[in-house]
Amino acid sequence: MGTQPAALSLLALAGIPLVKTGDNLVDIVMHGLAQSQAELARGDVIVLAQKIVSKAEGRQVALNGVTPSPRALELAAKVGKDPRLVELVLSESKEVVRTCPGVLVVAHRLGHVMANAGIDQSNVNQGDDEQALLLPFDPDGTCRRIRDALRERTGVDVAVMIIDSFGRAWRNGTVGTAIGVSGMPGLLNLRGEPDLFGRELQTTELGLADELAAAASLIMGQASEGRPVVLARGVPYARREGTASELLRPKELDMFR
Amino acid sequence: MGTQPAALSLLALAGIPLVKTGDNLVDIVMHGLAQSQAELARGDVIVLAQKIVSKAEGRQVALNGVTPSPRALELAAKVGKDPRLVELVLSESKEVVRTCPGVLVVAHRLGHVMANAGIDQSNVNQGDDEQALLLPFDPDGTCRRIRDALRERTGVDVAVMIIDSFGRAWRNGTVGTAIGVSGMPGLLNLRGEPDLFGRELQTTELGLADELAAAASLIMGQASEGRPVVLARGVPYARREGTASELLRPKELDMFR
Repeated sequence: MGTQPAALSLLALAGIPLVKTGDNLVDIVMHGLAQSQAELARGDVIVLAQKIVSKAEGRQVALNGVTPSPRALELAAKVGKDPRLVELVLSESKEVVRTCPGVLVVAHRLGHVMANAGIDQSNVNQGDDEQALLLPFDPDGTCRRIRDALRERTGVDVAVMIIDSFGRAWRNGTVGTAIGVSGMPGLLNLRGEPDLFGRELQTTELGLADELAAAASLIMGQASEGRPVVLARGVPYARREGTASELLRPKELDMFR
Repeated sequence: MGTQPAALSLLALAGIPLVKTGDNLVDIVMHGLAQSQAELARGDVIVLAQKIVSKAEGRQVALNGVTPSPRALELAAKVGKDPRLVELVLSESKEVVRTCPGVLVVAHRLGHVMANAGIDQSNVNQGDDEQALLLPFDPDGTCRRIRDALRERTGVDVAVMIIDSFGRAWRNGTVGTAIGVSGMPGLLNLRGEPDLFGRELQTTELGLADELAAAASLIMGQASEGRPVVLARGVPYARREGTASELLRPKELDMFR
């Protein structure tokens, strides 16, 4: 961390179109960079909103094609949600963590503890039918592939992240949170680093990718802005491969589920 | 949010000295701005690390002056911590939320659910005796006073935040989190804002101040950097008075304690 820059900048790329199934996200990022008169530099991080990744991957599901299981029907009645949505949530989850009227918190198959398995219905074009949008299939892998393709096209090694808005225990409001990472640490280990007085730090792990996800979320906007790609420059990180799964606390070490 | 800027920049101010009891944080911020050749602009946010605020307020406590209560002795044995530290944690808390060996999560008297009531021993000068550093007495109030003083000196209305590093349920690593706010919303209500397709958003509250806290934490550094003051520009927020306490989920609505 000794070479940590003292300035961080985040730019929401201009000219990002509505993303459809099959769209190439690398083309979209390159287009956004050109429209923003921005060029990639070594150490930059490209941050993508979950929604455009899910859409490009065709993760929309038509709700009227979903048949709820008995378990989904029962749970839907308990939480007051559409049984078809609950069926999708269960199919994307490995564990129901908490329920109460209006709330369904699960452990997603990727490991994230989150409401509704990250499935939502805002900013999804409905067309003739109600659609739900699932999380990307393999966010860490998608980040790696986008990173490789960006390096191939530009010659520059950047990191890539996919983020989503998560609710939290104990606190109101969602915050941007990393669900996919490549080219930077998810978690930064500070163990053994001295503090200002030369004593070993007590707080030894920093949720680096989650902090950057929150920063990027600030300028992406949650409503109609349509700014789903952010270029971050000046993020202090040791260059190594990393994943979002580093940020997941194993269930056996988690006191809150 | 329609006027939301597309770029966010964060600058860690240069030349911030080691802070001692009684130091004037407004002087320190003004000095840092001058050393960084930066001037405040309307809508900027000054983000202060909890530690320098606590030190300026004289919130250091000599551990050898603390006599643990029977309850602190019992709890200290259970979690494997210094009974004097546990006594301080209890005196700063209104509820013990979870304990296990090495972990003591409480609801701080200010309402934040956090490990050890936010008390730590890193970056606290020990001198002849072991010292612990408590959270600031009234972080929202301190932010308001610093904001008022900055406006008086510069004529510019900025927002001010105090942040600390928090652990989280379900996820590894700490993230910067707001414990004091003035001049901007802690929580941003998006209820009723249309999404890209004109439908009402499902996610209706954004943890704005916590997202900015995470962003600022990224460049403050956790170890020996000594960059405890950050100037943030381009943060999208509706100008209103706000507090960090907006971010606290009331206990009766909290499923995770």
